[in-house]
Amino acid sequence: MDGNSGPVMLINLFEVPSGADAGFIAAWEHARDFLAAQEGYRSTELHQSLGPDAEFRFVNVAEWASPAAFRAAVGQPGFREAAAAIQQRAHPGLYQVVRR
Amino acid sequence: MDGNSGPVMLINLFEVPSGADAGFIAAWEHARDFLAAQEGYRSTELHQSLGPDAEFRFVNVAEWASPAAFRAAVGQPGFREAAAAIQQRAHPGLYQVVRR
Repeated sequence: MDGNSGPVMLINLFEVPSGADAGFIAAWEHARDFLAAQEGYRSTELHQSLGPDAEFRFVNVAEWASPAAFRAAVGQPGFREAAAAIQQRAHPGLYQVVRR
Repeated sequence: MDGNSGPVMLINLFEVPSGADAGFIAAWEHARDFLAAQEGYRSTELHQSLGPDAEFRFVNVAEWASPAAFRAAVGQPGFREAAAAIQQRAHPGLYQVVRR
């Protein structure tokens, strides 16, 4: 796959203990606000599991204009600070839609 | 969260060895064709990781009309057969979008 150009999906799996939802969501919003202001950001949706026992209770699916745009955004000096509260729980990966 | 009514997102993480992509995609299409014919199915997108080393090299994100509709669909006698080739690699969960 040529993953270096064109739109790309960030899928980020978060391990969040049951009961820590409100704090996680607030921290996620902080990181989202930072990223939404960066070039190449298109959209994002934060998913919360229906069941309390899911391994990944939150999953973020975001669209970026390109892998390079995403990597530049998370390489910004301000990103580490904005995302500090959620990065240790995160399992991010870049994907492309291959079938519908 | 009230997860028993309204639209729901299925997020399914697949562990697929590098090199097994074509067979996996064909098997996924078989399962998709079965599910797409069931009541309550709305849409699906299969994501493939850009990098070969991702833990979950394929992620399916599908929308269903309700959790009950999804559970009824995968409870159909034909589903186990249609999905046999991919179920052992699957980590499915139901989610709702809580932030954008």
